[in-house]
Amino acid sequence: MDEPWSIGIDLGGTKLEAAYVDEMGRIRQRVRKPTNVKGGPAAIIEDVIGCMWALREGAESPPVGVGVGVAGQVEKESGKVTFAPNLDWRDVPLQEELQRSIGLPVIVTNDVRAATWGEWLYGAGRGCDDILCMFVGTGIGGGVVSGGQMLAGCNNTAGEVGHITVDMNGPRCSCGNRGCLESLAGGWAITRMAREIVAANPEEGRLMLEMAGGRIEEINVQTVARAVRGGDPMARRLMDGIVNVLVAGASTLVNAFNPCRLILGGGVITGIPELIGRIDKGLREQALSAACSSLMVIPAGLRSDAGVIGAAALAFRTFH
Amino acid sequence: MDEPWSIGIDLGGTKLEAAYVDEMGRIRQRVRKPTNVKGGPAAIIEDVIGCMWALREGAESPPVGVGVGVAGQVEKESGKVTFAPNLDWRDVPLQEELQRSIGLPVIVTNDVRAATWGEWLYGAGRGCDDILCMFVGTGIGGGVVSGGQMLAGCNNTAGEVGHITVDMNGPRCSCGNRGCLESLAGGWAITRMAREIVAANPEEGRLMLEMAGGRIEEINVQTVARAVRGGDPMARRLMDGIVNVLVAGASTLVNAFNPCRLILGGGVITGIPELIGRIDKGLREQALSAACSSLMVIPAGLRSDAGVIGAAALAFRTFH
Repeated sequence: MDEPWSIGIDLGGTKLEAAYVDEMGRIRQRVRKPTNVKGGPAAIIEDVIGCMWALREGAESPPVGVGVGVAGQVEKESGKVTFAPNLDWRDVPLQEELQRSIGLPVIVTNDVRAATWGEWLYGAGRGCDDILCMFVGTGIGGGVVSGGQMLAGCNNTAGEVGHITVDMNGPRCSCGNRGCLESLAGGWAITRMAREIVAANPEEGRLMLEMAGGRIEEINVQTVARAVRGGDPMARRLMDGIVNVLVAGASTLVNAFNPCRLILGGGVITGIPELIGRIDKGLREQALSAACSSLMVIPAGLRSDAGVIGAAALAFRTFH
Repeated sequence: MDEPWSIGIDLGGTKLEAAYVDEMGRIRQRVRKPTNVKGGPAAIIEDVIGCMWALREGAESPPVGVGVGVAGQVEKESGKVTFAPNLDWRDVPLQEELQRSIGLPVIVTNDVRAATWGEWLYGAGRGCDDILCMFVGTGIGGGVVSGGQMLAGCNNTAGEVGHITVDMNGPRCSCGNRGCLESLAGGWAITRMAREIVAANPEEGRLMLEMAGGRIEEINVQTVARAVRGGDPMARRLMDGIVNVLVAGASTLVNAFNPCRLILGGGVITGIPELIGRIDKGLREQALSAACSSLMVIPAGLRSDAGVIGAAALAFRTFH
């Protein structure tokens, strides 16, 4: 029973999850808490420490280390969180503080990067040296493994696939630039576009409005997905437009990175799984044929567990 | 005088160049020939072999190996040229044939990848682990080094930066897709756009037409560059549009790869060097601030020698 294990932590703007993960990437135990954003960094760090102790107490041996994926920008090496808008953090030395208080080696990375580690080592990217993960949720994020190496880049921000330009004359994105992939196909953008077209054309938008209990402000990605399945023409047109955007963005990524596997995950993909086949088909028509001659377009394998499993796997890689 | 050296070869659609390169990346001797495309693969390979022998004869010791950069798609490991439209080649086992006939180790790669090797090891990327080279010539090509590793991808096509989408509703590109960077800012596209706007508006296009000797079909990138310098409003508007496209494309690349140095080369850049400053400025406004916080935007250092120097450097790396 003394087999090695590590702690994986997924720290997002709404919830904090910590898991006891074994060397095969299996979750043996987990702890969840809502993220106490209002309490500031100190309160959140205290909760993280509490979760780590809870997992450690139940185990016979100490873990080999702790991996943390946090929704924000993280400095390489130091693991300092330089900016995390959803946590309202700037320059929080998370790695150093956790390490000091728990007395175990700790490595902090970005949450999407952690999920990419998870997919690479235990999910849909297993055994492959060239993968690109794209997670389409409220925003769009990703990570890239090329030649058997997780890309980090100069400031540890490589893989920001949500902010590739697909339409330089398009709408303003939250990042300030125009026509980013996220601003035309991320969950927040889909929700906004759906509400706008229903408001502009309530007669044709009747089905979506009904599905949202008659309240435009309740329309979201799930509403659109259900309306598409229900054969609603307006929702279908919206979805066709989103597919075109995702294909354009995926073509850019396939041409630039030439992955063997394009791994698609996140709430929008799991909610509308037919997107995977449509993106695949579009890529064969639009990306360079040499760049997709061996390409597989597949769903992520670990779903919402990718973050904790990946963070734990990173700790194994780094400290074991 | 027995210092190690290697042969670097740059095989393009119009000329073939071979050079004796020392371990410091200096060219000691070079041979040039027009590419005999009409003669087919056998004639070109014969010319390459002739150049190699010419360089070898003049040297006291044999080279450590031969590196070849060829304008086309090259298979990893085997060095087979799968497709080279400018040479009219398909599936030519160039590496194997050269190796057999000269009895030296040979490595074949793509010409733009070779130039990226040159810039990385001896040019503007020297000493840096994260660079992105973008060469804007007739087409647009590039190469990426990330974490100290040259990216190859699944089919050896990583770094096809000319075919990232900047305007998904834009004009058709030569690759079949719409609104690729190359289709809106490559040399062939600039030439086409300039001719079109002059033809549509000969009065305003007077200066460019004059500079081209009164013949629309003689208008090219140089014409546009000279007209911009001469203060011509039409050429300036065209150039402003090209800058916007290059900034959009560079933003995508900086956000996705997060290089420390964006290295710009190729005929369009050397002909219009002010593009570098304008792309730099645009990036600071449009790319993610975290992704360009340490970014330098600089000109390529080896100009047209990058190809032979890089091919020779690759041979050194591989065989020495």
